[in-house]
Amino acid sequence: MEALKTAMASIAADMETTLDRLIPTGDGREQRVFDAMRYASLAGGKRLRPFLAVATADLFDVDRAHSLRAGAAVEFVHCYSLVHDDLPAMDDDELRRGRPTCHIQFDEATAILAGDGLLTLAFEVLASTETHPDPQVRSELIAALAAGAGATGMVGGQMFDLEAEKHGDQFDLNDVIRLQEMKTGRLIGFGCKAGPILAQAGEKERAALDAYAAELGLAFQIADDILDAEGSEEEVGKKVGKDADAGKVTFVSLLGLEEAKKRAVNLTLQSAGHLDLFGAKADLLRDVARFVVERRA
Amino acid sequence: MEALKTAMASIAADMETTLDRLIPTGDGREQRVFDAMRYASLAGGKRLRPFLAVATADLFDVDRAHSLRAGAAVEFVHCYSLVHDDLPAMDDDELRRGRPTCHIQFDEATAILAGDGLLTLAFEVLASTETHPDPQVRSELIAALAAGAGATGMVGGQMFDLEAEKHGDQFDLNDVIRLQEMKTGRLIGFGCKAGPILAQAGEKERAALDAYAAELGLAFQIADDILDAEGSEEEVGKKVGKDADAGKVTFVSLLGLEEAKKRAVNLTLQSAGHLDLFGAKADLLRDVARFVVERRA
Repeated sequence: MEALKTAMASIAADMETTLDRLIPTGDGREQRVFDAMRYASLAGGKRLRPFLAVATADLFDVDRAHSLRAGAAVEFVHCYSLVHDDLPAMDDDELRRGRPTCHIQFDEATAILAGDGLLTLAFEVLASTETHPDPQVRSELIAALAAGAGATGMVGGQMFDLEAEKHGDQFDLNDVIRLQEMKTGRLIGFGCKAGPILAQAGEKERAALDAYAAELGLAFQIADDILDAEGSEEEVGKKVGKDADAGKVTFVSLLGLEEAKKRAVNLTLQSAGHLDLFGAKADLLRDVARFVVERRA
Repeated sequence: MEALKTAMASIAADMETTLDRLIPTGDGREQRVFDAMRYASLAGGKRLRPFLAVATADLFDVDRAHSLRAGAAVEFVHCYSLVHDDLPAMDDDELRRGRPTCHIQFDEATAILAGDGLLTLAFEVLASTETHPDPQVRSELIAALAAGAGATGMVGGQMFDLEAEKHGDQFDLNDVIRLQEMKTGRLIGFGCKAGPILAQAGEKERAALDAYAAELGLAFQIADDILDAEGSEEEVGKKVGKDADAGKVTFVSLLGLEEAKKRAVNLTLQSAGHLDLFGAKADLLRDVARFVVERRA
């Protein structure tokens, strides 16, 4: 796991620079929205989705300048989704990664616009020739990110989640799996698609990484529910115990803590199994699956 | 103007079908966000931006199936911006095109998500091979729409506008021109770029349509300020007199009603002047400039 920690830290540092460079600067009257976009994006964090983009691209020896930009795009989408999810009308959170959420630090209107700006920026970044000289690659990246982030993906998952809070008693395990696949799984899925798309890899490689991503994403979300149930606010950097307080249906409430942990571990083993065709080159991706369930934040 | 009215009505009808077909359907738990996206997009309206996309594409005999999709993309962005602008934290409007705004009809959380879903859908539509078989065209359309809609374009303009409401006394005519160019001008600009991008037209044609769009956009916004100052709620379909009530700096407050009207008319004449190289083929675009300042809603 040491190699993984070093690689994650190194890519997270490169990501911080990349994100910062991509957010507009200026001294016009609209600068406030740039500031809020920067605040919402440069709060550190694991940078899991960009890590997956870069690590899957490394399997095919893709230029890091390209994979970092694809990673930045999915991170912008992730950050926008957190800004909007934290709004009073949504989850109403005041703390994120140990800092005030965007609408607390700025105001609600600015937070809404910052989220909109980040989402749009993601597509602007992918459409640039700096992300890849081949327009077919750019277009595929955009189609994949839009499908993952939109109303049949992440946005739909968030809608689903709000419905789950209202009508949780009608939800079973299959609903929660589908909800989480949309809400969290799809962006993790994009991270794992970015590499093979940038490399224009073959169908077999793409299918293997999709299968890996599906199980990794589910493991990630089960681990998230476990953290909410037994983590501390200090470790996690945001309010915990919210799911139980809200009477929300989660993997933990449906399976119990022990069974949830067992499933998460099994999923990481399964996910690693899809990587055989990449040999030792995929060791970081095998480790990341373990990291995802063992993390404490 | 009769030919224009017929053409606008025909394209608006085609647009309604196109938008409806592009918004997801389904019976999953996330269906509420599809419903809200449909509600926010299918409220009729002039469909000015899609009209410009189709009419500029017609100059180059582009397949209507392609230009209608490019028009739908910019209309989705326009509709999302209205949904978010109407939110309580932003302009706090309850009426739009004579109907309850999206957050009144549904709720705030659903409206935020519907806006996010529409914005993402715009890029998904443009990235599809159905919009154009050449990925270079798709990529250019996406780059242009993202640049126009993002934090250095429409979103920045909205931020600018919120600042103008707070610090209006520090704003002069140049500020208002820049604000409106970002907030309104850039999407009108995309409408006029869509045609030449779809046709991969030459620099001269692109520059002419950009120049046309710049003056058309400004005329449009001056006309909007005039409507807010002297239109009736019944005609306009939303609350009027809001600018004066809010003490907002507008073209009307800075120039006076008569001078604002004179400028709008002059701009339409100027804008038409850029279309000479297209001959009679551009007559609809010449008429649309007049329509924009003469409209009552």
